[in-house]
Amino acid sequence: VVNLHTEVLESGLELYFIKSGSMQGLDPMRSESDFKTLGLALRLNTLSMIKAAGSGHIGSSFSAIDLMLAHRTFLSENFDDVFFSSKGHDAPGLYAVMNAFGEIPDSFLLRLRRMEGLPGHPEVGSFNIPTSTGSLGMGISKAKGFWYSRKNLNSNITVLLGDGELQEGQIWESLPGASRDNMSGLIAIVDGNKIQSDTWVEKTLPLGDLSKRVEGSGWLYLECDGHDYSSLRETLTQAKTEKKKPVFIYAHTQKGSGVSFMEHFSSSGRFYKYHSGSPSDQDYLRAVEELIKKIGSSYELNYSQIFLLKNESRNQSDDLTPKTRNQSLIQIWASILEDLFESDKSLVALDADLAYDTGTYLVADKFNSQYIQCGIAEQDMVSMAGTLALSGKIPFVHSFASFLTTRAAEQIFNNLSENSKVIYCGFLAGLLPSAPGHSHQAVSDFGIVSSFPNIEIFEPACETEMSLMKTLVYESDKSIYLRVGSVDLPEKVAPEIVKLGRITQRKFGERYAIITSGPSMAKIALEVARAEGENEVAVFTYPTPNRLLNLEDRKLILNFKKVLVIENHLPSLGIYSQLLEYLPTSGADVKLIRSGISELPKNGQTQEVLQYHGMDVDSISKALRN
Amino acid sequence: VVNLHTEVLESGLELYFIKSGSMQGLDPMRSESDFKTLGLALRLNTLSMIKAAGSGHIGSSFSAIDLMLAHRTFLSENFDDVFFSSKGHDAPGLYAVMNAFGEIPDSFLLRLRRMEGLPGHPEVGSFNIPTSTGSLGMGISKAKGFWYSRKNLNSNITVLLGDGELQEGQIWESLPGASRDNMSGLIAIVDGNKIQSDTWVEKTLPLGDLSKRVEGSGWLYLECDGHDYSSLRETLTQAKTEKKKPVFIYAHTQKGSGVSFMEHFSSSGRFYKYHSGSPSDQDYLRAVEELIKKIGSSYELNYSQIFLLKNESRNQSDDLTPKTRNQSLIQIWASILEDLFESDKSLVALDADLAYDTGTYLVADKFNSQYIQCGIAEQDMVSMAGTLALSGKIPFVHSFASFLTTRAAEQIFNNLSENSKVIYCGFLAGLLPSAPGHSHQAVSDFGIVSSFPNIEIFEPACETEMSLMKTLVYESDKSIYLRVGSVDLPEKVAPEIVKLGRITQRKFGERYAIITSGPSMAKIALEVARAEGENEVAVFTYPTPNRLLNLEDRKLILNFKKVLVIENHLPSLGIYSQLLEYLPTSGADVKLIRSGISELPKNGQTQEVLQYHGMDVDSISKALRN
Repeated sequence: VVNLHTEVLESGLELYFIKSGSMQGLDPMRSESDFKTLGLALRLNTLSMIKAAGSGHIGSSFSAIDLMLAHRTFLSENFDDVFFSSKGHDAPGLYAVMNAFGEIPDSFLLRLRRMEGLPGHPEVGSFNIPTSTGSLGMGISKAKGFWYSRKNLNSNITVLLGDGELQEGQIWESLPGASRDNMSGLIAIVDGNKIQSDTWVEKTLPLGDLSKRVEGSGWLYLECDGHDYSSLRETLTQAKTEKKKPVFIYAHTQKGSGVSFMEHFSSSGRFYKYHSGSPSDQDYLRAVEELIKKIGSSYELNYSQIFLLKNESRNQSDDLTPKTRNQSLIQIWASILEDLFESDKSLVALDADLAYDTGTYLVADKFNSQYIQCGIAEQDMVSMAGTLALSGKIPFVHSFASFLTTRAAEQIFNNLSENSKVIYCGFLAGLLPSAPGHSHQAVSDFGIVSSFPNIEIFEPACETEMSLMKTLVYESDKSIYLRVGSVDLPEKVAPEIVKLGRITQRKFGERYAIITSGPSMAKIALEVARAEGENEVAVFTYPTPNRLLNLEDRKLILNFKKVLVIENHLPSLGIYSQLLEYLPTSGADVKLIRSGISELPKNGQTQEVLQYHGMDVDSISKALRN
Repeated sequence: VVNLHTEVLESGLELYFIKSGSMQGLDPMRSESDFKTLGLALRLNTLSMIKAAGSGHIGSSFSAIDLMLAHRTFLSENFDDVFFSSKGHDAPGLYAVMNAFGEIPDSFLLRLRRMEGLPGHPEVGSFNIPTSTGSLGMGISKAKGFWYSRKNLNSNITVLLGDGELQEGQIWESLPGASRDNMSGLIAIVDGNKIQSDTWVEKTLPLGDLSKRVEGSGWLYLECDGHDYSSLRETLTQAKTEKKKPVFIYAHTQKGSGVSFMEHFSSSGRFYKYHSGSPSDQDYLRAVEELIKKIGSSYELNYSQIFLLKNESRNQSDDLTPKTRNQSLIQIWASILEDLFESDKSLVALDADLAYDTGTYLVADKFNSQYIQCGIAEQDMVSMAGTLALSGKIPFVHSFASFLTTRAAEQIFNNLSENSKVIYCGFLAGLLPSAPGHSHQAVSDFGIVSSFPNIEIFEPACETEMSLMKTLVYESDKSIYLRVGSVDLPEKVAPEIVKLGRITQRKFGERYAIITSGPSMAKIALEVARAEGENEVAVFTYPTPNRLLNLEDRKLILNFKKVLVIENHLPSLGIYSQLLEYLPTSGADVKLIRSGISELPKNGQTQEVLQYHGMDVDSISKALRN
């Protein structure tokens, strides 16, 4: 039996992994016991990967691991069978499984969510991942594309879905075509862990009678116990032998399955703690101890099978867990919303299962009649907001920027064509956090919204700027896209410095100017300016980047020798293009340059990604000096 | 009995309308006979409105009219009941009903699809239309927004849906929330005419067992005969008295109902003729004769009830009917696709029920195994294309530009993040045709796609430029957005003049230059140039507007005294911003100006809309000279 260091070492935590080679003795096809033991070992590795990465999704990795294992054990038999996870945030679990089967080397277990490592959500180009996922709802459509291009007509295409994911309309849109074309061999398995991002599916947006909904679309519907060996074997075997229809399996699972205190979540629970984020040191060691003990009860685990890695590069800047999250614009927005709702009964907050991550939780508690939980159903949410607005309400629509501006782009355009006022609040906007990967990096949102009529972008850099929303909501005759960078927060400026429609001077300087919007880039700009010496570099933020610059502001900016615009998005109309347009007639002798994202962003840890894109402190300093 | 002029007059056709005042004697609540007669009268007015407009949707206006009438007769009783049509292309029928009930003056019957008249699809701000529709699938979500903001808890919110529309995922996304919140009083009525844009729903993408799908989402499901008085009365009454659940009614109807030859469509039919577009003169008169005869059989119609209006302002430029459509880039694309598919078995065409309007019909016939009919399910289509691309295919995705780039924006971004190659073909791109209205005017598509990584826009102006697609498809290492203006076609240039990545000089000139992309604006630019005299104005088109201009081309352009860029989209990065960026270092003494759309576009007939936006020949000439 293995003894553990169950204390936090001064030099950092030691992380426990079970070597992939040593797991090859466990054959899940041979026995239920091996299946179970392997599942526990994979949970240990998954947990350690997430701990090393500083963020990741424990709960749904754990609920899905037995399903992934069962797929390899009972379902897949052809070389060209395809398996992928549509929900994608179970990536750590998936990588652990791939590692155990020799497809990902052990050395990569410490490279989760690092550049050129293992992406936060699965990505094509990373080992044998067949398609990039993590934008919910696309899974069955993607599986159909693979099905149409099968060369071996006996191969299976299997897609793993989340139960919360079933709220997305695309899931239901994709079902009828599969039955029309008799897609036997296409198998969708739902990781039915009953808990979505914030809380219970049943409390968020119930799925109704799934069997009727699925059978009504012409699929074979099956259910099973997603942690039970026999039940999985029986159900997956049936799925494999079905020769006429596509098969939809709802597997009953438990979120956090395998670690007792992660499994527990009260039926009235508000925020399930282990959905995303890295565990605390204590939670980590407690879980490791329990897992190793459980493994040991049926299998003799010895030291030679374990390797310990010192978690030296701990970086929690991308950590989004409730307990460890730094103060950010999210909490500030929560309290601004609360103030607004306090005094105005015509306001309505709409949320797509991200109450915690978009700051609607205070309003949901205190003004519940003005709050609509829409589930993971962004299109529905946005169109509802449209008619709420036409009925005299002011709706505030919340989601991550990457989902809101793309999934519901047509619905937003439709609302804008009605000349009503809706406040679209998009979080996690911009390059950072870069750990979750492309599906969560909103770098096109700025350009998309800029291309729409009747809407303006408001992108605050600090609490003081964000407070302007209190007046903008009423003063604006347009809809507003509140673009929120969720991870950083520079020091706030004094209220008298900010004014709606004007630039905010955050630091005095005489030679160079940096102008940007949003917290992350403001913070970097300030660091650059400080590094360059007292009166060298002035730093400005402009929270209304698509509004024509005030004449005075424009003159002020173009008076510098060199002006660097940092844009936290792919190129599109914004501050830089505005200044460029003024240049020919300004008579100014200024060098105007731009730093920003110019390609599909990298994902990984903050510093390495910023550096890659030339947006870290050093690169910006260099750009300014050269 | 009324006698008709059943011939086409030299001075134009006379259009038959029944005065709204004279219809008020018909009380559909009183008798089945009045209900029927009124329905026929409304069909007459609808047909004449469409004939006057030069375009519009006859088939689904006719199938929906009895439902609209039944809503007013059996369902609505409160002042603040809400009714709207989600499919929206039955707008002419809706306007006819509103007119009969005194809500739209007779004078507007000739102003369908004209600026400040009656929009091609229903729009907020036009009489009592509660919300803007025509982008399919949003209806139930919109109804829910109205339901949440009801002041009178007894009022009904009724939304009319198309049966083809049920293919959209948003419909299914929107159902569960309504049952969760016990939305009794929310009633969805499906105009089940069994035929969608091109052909039969059953041949396109079958809906499956609707009752199971709907009941599984917690709604009460009912069916009725949508043209039968008693059946409608019974079903709508039941819907009205339901106190627990939202109600979903599938009404069996007939497309083109009321006019015998418009009702007929063979079960193997390819393109239903009366889905969109204005009827021919002969069809018009035949239909009018039949309708008036039918009305006369149960009701004494006399001359005083009819008014004849001479259709003087006939303008068929926005007419999209098969028979009357001018040669456009659609047919050219159909034949380019055919050539491409002839020689490459790895190509796949995907279509969202727009085979006729996006030119996939030839490929569908000749290379059926390389063709996937996706139904009205753009998100599903785009995600399938993504995995087809990853499997070694080159997928060509087709829809209208307005739907493709917004409804499936997240799916497109996801595909792009996979670095695969998908060809996105967006039709009806740009301001024109302006008659169908905002839902169909793609003016944000350019900016949206410009904001994405790994994709380039290709916007051909004529057949010769479009032919470049044959090489671009293979040479490009990016995905391509083929942006197709569907309504105009300037003369094509000689093949030796066009070269991939270069500007095309379409007319020589010495003083001024106009540069643009796409057929409509190229045509206008050429007209301007010709009006300005022999050697004054040069006209260029640039089909790769986001690709950096070649050095020679840039020099050539900036050598003119004045350069006018016409952009057929809302402001975003493109030719104008490129030239602007070169200006400071070019040393050129050129005046650079832009014409283009700068606000939510107007809808109406071509000339009035172009004029409004300063994009007609006169305005462009003026801009050039001032």
